[in-house]
Amino acid sequence: MTTRWLTEEEQTAWIRFAAVLELLPGVLDSQLVRDEGLTHFDYFALAMLSEAPERTLRMTTLAGRTSATLPRLSRVLNRLEQQGLVERQPSAEDRRATNVVLTEQGWEKLVHAAPGHVTNVRANVLDALSAEQVGQLSTICTQVLSKLDPDGKMFAHVLR
Amino acid sequence: MTTRWLTEEEQTAWIRFAAVLELLPGVLDSQLVRDEGLTHFDYFALAMLSEAPERTLRMTTLAGRTSATLPRLSRVLNRLEQQGLVERQPSAEDRRATNVVLTEQGWEKLVHAAPGHVTNVRANVLDALSAEQVGQLSTICTQVLSKLDPDGKMFAHVLR
Repeated sequence: MTTRWLTEEEQTAWIRFAAVLELLPGVLDSQLVRDEGLTHFDYFALAMLSEAPERTLRMTTLAGRTSATLPRLSRVLNRLEQQGLVERQPSAEDRRATNVVLTEQGWEKLVHAAPGHVTNVRANVLDALSAEQVGQLSTICTQVLSKLDPDGKMFAHVLR
Repeated sequence: MTTRWLTEEEQTAWIRFAAVLELLPGVLDSQLVRDEGLTHFDYFALAMLSEAPERTLRMTTLAGRTSATLPRLSRVLNRLEQQGLVERQPSAEDRRATNVVLTEQGWEKLVHAAPGHVTNVRANVLDALSAEQVGQLSTICTQVLSKLDPDGKMFAHVLR
């Protein structure tokens, strides 16, 4: 099969995007770890629970929404559970399934962490962009997610 | 200080972008690890060397272009050096500085890895976007990089 090499415009866009992919996760993690003792993944998982009815999601659903494998999510939940931020419970509807519940303490942690995180996201991403560009980024990410997440397991798809 | 919370449009854009940030690195890594035994970071470091004059960069410059700390970059280079893909040499101009050189074997590895990687980048990102959106993404990333990398150490800045 012949490789369709990138055009100059595509290569420039990709190198810039790859640089953002390389730098941004560290910027998000370091503020949250320093100020709250949470990784960005921890924060994202707590935020996903906070948006769910009764602040509860099935393990498998939470794994989809955070794009984690079940073993990875389990390790994170062990840590969050020890800190009293979440609880795991057998599902009332299906005893083989496990629910994850955001505790009151987890909710308070999230409320405490949100201002610093939002300020960081503004300072490093959103405030660099015009309102029009925020819309462009949103559409671009939706189209990329249709490739990365064809089954629509991520929370981003719920927003459609 | 009062937090400027995200508008609905900003929140939607951010959640979608965060989902891409969470998913895309794993997609890039798993293809390269499976097919070439390289992480995306390894590939990116080899590619940065391949673009440099005489396929050589100072350690500190390579660290900037890959946005790695020196200890992280050293660990990666230990591994790449054991595989014969790069060599470290004292700089002829400044004996205290270390140069990193892409070996012929490293160049061949990169040439071998490029088609699969480019095909993966196309399949998961670029082919989902119109030419206009590729241009929008490029501009958006430049503006975000001006926040993430204010000193302009990344290769992305060389492209301006």
